[in-house]
Amino acid sequence: MNKTIQSGIGKSALQLVLANSHEIEDTKTRVIESDYSFCTGKTGSMDMQKVVSAIETAAKRNEIIDETLYREMHALYHAILEALEGVTRGQVLLGDVMRTVGLRFSVVRGRPYENEAEGEWIAVALYGTIGAPIRGLEHETTGLGINHI
Amino acid sequence: MNKTIQSGIGKSALQLVLANSHEIEDTKTRVIESDYSFCTGKTGSMDMQKVVSAIETAAKRNEIIDETLYREMHALYHAILEALEGVTRGQVLLGDVMRTVGLRFSVVRGRPYENEAEGEWIAVALYGTIGAPIRGLEHETTGLGINHI
Amino acid sequence: MNKTIQSGIGKSALQLVLANSHEIEDTKTRVIESDYSFCTGKTGSMDMQKVVSAIETAAKRNEIIDETLYREMHALYHAILEALEGVTRGQVLLGDVMRTVGLRFSVVRGRPYENEAEGEWIAVALYGTIGAPIRGLEHETTGLGINHI
Amino acid sequence: MNKTIQSGIGKSALQLVLANSHEIEDTKTRVIESDYSFCTGKTGSMDMQKVVSAIETAAKRNEIIDETLYREMHALYHAILEALEGVTRGQVLLGDVMRTVGLRFSVVRGRPYENEAEGEWIAVALYGTIGAPIRGLEHETTGLGINHI
Amino acid sequence: MNKTIQSGIGKSALQLVLANSHEIEDTKTRVIESDYSFCTGKTGSMDMQKVVSAIETAAKRNEIIDETLYREMHALYHAILEALEGVTRGQVLLGDVMRTVGLRFSVVRGRPYENEAEGEWIAVALYGTIGAPIRGLEHETTGLGINHI
Amino acid sequence: MNKTIQSGIGKSALQLVLANSHEIEDTKTRVIESDYSFCTGKTGSMDMQKVVSAIETAAKRNEIIDETLYREMHALYHAILEALEGVTRGQVLLGDVMRTVGLRFSVVRGRPYENEAEGEWIAVALYGTIGAPIRGLEHETTGLGINHI
Repeated sequence: MNKTIQSGIGKSALQLVLANSHEIEDTKTRVIESDYSFCTGKTGSMDMQKVVSAIETAAKRNEIIDETLYREMHALYHAILEALEGVTRGQVLLGDVMRTVGLRFSVVRGRPYENEAEGEWIAVALYGTIGAPIRGLEHETTGLGINHI
Repeated sequence: MNKTIQSGIGKSALQLVLANSHEIEDTKTRVIESDYSFCTGKTGSMDMQKVVSAIETAAKRNEIIDETLYREMHALYHAILEALEGVTRGQVLLGDVMRTVGLRFSVVRGRPYENEAEGEWIAVALYGTIGAPIRGLEHETTGLGINHI
Repeated sequence: MNKTIQSGIGKSALQLVLANSHEIEDTKTRVIESDYSFCTGKTGSMDMQKVVSAIETAAKRNEIIDETLYREMHALYHAILEALEGVTRGQVLLGDVMRTVGLRFSVVRGRPYENEAEGEWIAVALYGTIGAPIRGLEHETTGLGINHI
Repeated sequence: MNKTIQSGIGKSALQLVLANSHEIEDTKTRVIESDYSFCTGKTGSMDMQKVVSAIETAAKRNEIIDETLYREMHALYHAILEALEGVTRGQVLLGDVMRTVGLRFSVVRGRPYENEAEGEWIAVALYGTIGAPIRGLEHETTGLGINHI
Repeated sequence: MNKTIQSGIGKSALQLVLANSHEIEDTKTRVIESDYSFCTGKTGSMDMQKVVSAIETAAKRNEIIDETLYREMHALYHAILEALEGVTRGQVLLGDVMRTVGLRFSVVRGRPYENEAEGEWIAVALYGTIGAPIRGLEHETTGLGINHI
Repeated sequence: MNKTIQSGIGKSALQLVLANSHEIEDTKTRVIESDYSFCTGKTGSMDMQKVVSAIETAAKRNEIIDETLYREMHALYHAILEALEGVTRGQVLLGDVMRTVGLRFSVVRGRPYENEAEGEWIAVALYGTIGAPIRGLEHETTGLGINHI
């Protein structure tokens, strides 16, 4: 398979969270054709712990990562935290600074490099809204974390 | 015009930097149909100052912002910095910590909220690679900053 | 009116929180003469959320900002967070790292630039004490956030 | 002498940088009456190193601190860095992120607590402008750092 | 006594937390011979406040610092926070980002410089594990904070 | 081999940088007996880039990592940056904020977990001094970064 930038693991993860309802099936098909495994989900909270937990749980239940191996959990965890840096832009805090998020997330796993020795990598993408805990007082936000696994 | 999440200013900015070559014209058309003005460009450097400067210059030259008004420059500047938080994930540093970026950027301006009183907003999206200053030793990265103008 | 640095919006906000009891009326008069609207208040907590909330509530109740407009709330919110960076100096955390604050705050709104096209800006100033949750184990702290509105 | 909040070391430092030309002599007199020693100065640069260096040099030349003692230099250094957190609000960077400062500074040393055993403390206050390296594209900024000496 | 790097206050603090059970008595003897006073302890939590509190309490109970003097508490507090920066590496957060620590700590006080005028300093060292709140999903972590007292 | 905490990869890395001259051979022997490969070195600079580069170069020359594989370089790079967070405690900056470091470093690679499936990990330890660019105006500092490889 030819791994061009078109099938980058990060771009795949981003497209999964950005796809509108009529685009989502095509997007999933393209990601599968790139030999990536993935899961998607939604999470919303003022509590950062719940956001981290929702993504970890989805990745474990969908067997994107093996929860019995710390190296896989460690790779996922740091990818999640890096994605949250993009979402929060500065201080990785939500409710403590009176803001809340509503996010779609994707976790994508696979081999983004042509050199087989580069092995597997993981990408976590987030897209949604961040703002005051009042409907409408919010704007869009995104984040992407990538790690070797 | 009905401003649904489909035409969010942040999503529009992200789609402009994520579009593959055969998708870019359609993407631009969609963004224009959402009544947004925008510009796109590329920048690559180990020097953060050059990245900031490239985006500011493009936004000024393409008249997305009025460079004689500090309030517009201030809105753009903070949107750029927030996007760079997503790209750098922690410390907004490039060459100082021995890494370089190659980025596509977009700057989108318009009215993303149905309530006209919400006025204009600006979105800056970045997508590309970050890594060691050696070709191939890099992975994807993205960032999005949004501000009222 | 001649807007010199003497009537800067940030300096006005700082003077409102620094004024001693016998100076406060003169200070308020000077700020009003600069055509700024403002409110002042006090807040003390180990809980950052309560500090943010106290300032937002005062600004809304005193009609310094229009709480139905997200662009105004967004401008205020980022000014508050920037002021808190000065107060906390590093990590925007209070109780989590065993410290508490007792703060006076001011929110000032107006036109600090001679060019009318620069429009309205908002300044949030904080001054008080930060320290251990034991009386006397504390020192002074300040912060200033400024944003276009 | 009665050390009330009126003569706080931090407030004294802030008043020295905020005073207008016709207020500066009265302010200095009040600070001297509080038994504080102090120096003031100006610095402007896109280079953070020059800002730190200007304040350190002034404090040494005016014998506010004893430059042969590391404990005094260490106390001053951390007070400067904390004040710069307030000025930069997030990332302690200037030129790297395309911005410049023009600052007045004060360094104040003395005994702010009634209990003599609390010994000497140092306060560094900064006030001025931060913005793009173009005249007028800037707003006010402030910072305060306090340390035991 | 000749204060060489061999008896640095920071190295002493680190050796106290790194010593295995059969080395601890020798290590303590060496630290005492360097004329340092110290205490050691253990703390584990997802709650950063409890970690800070455990170290402060141990230092007070063992009379390493005088809790009635703010200058001593201030010196200790900043040394603890600096040590926690090394442990958390980026955001000084534990449970908020779904992680927990199990740490040994030491607080060492004394005169690490040959020049008597440099006076007393304090070092806080931390060593242990950080990771998910599941046994085994963790790796080692360390931190060191040093301050004049 | 029984991997107890006594032979933790992080503790091994720390012991290599903390060992005095008469202890270094015993320490190296113990690390080798734990089946870890490692290298050590020294670096001193006001320029963070040179510090990062010195550690990367040593790890490549001593074949602790395979420089042709990005996944190995990526693992090392993040371990270095995490160790530097402990050294700098807040802002990963040296000369920009007028300070310099003199550091011993170690890079250790191996299998710290009993479960073979956890694979290889890398630890980077730093120990030395940080301070003003004047001899003696400095104190000790340390940092530890650990990553799966």
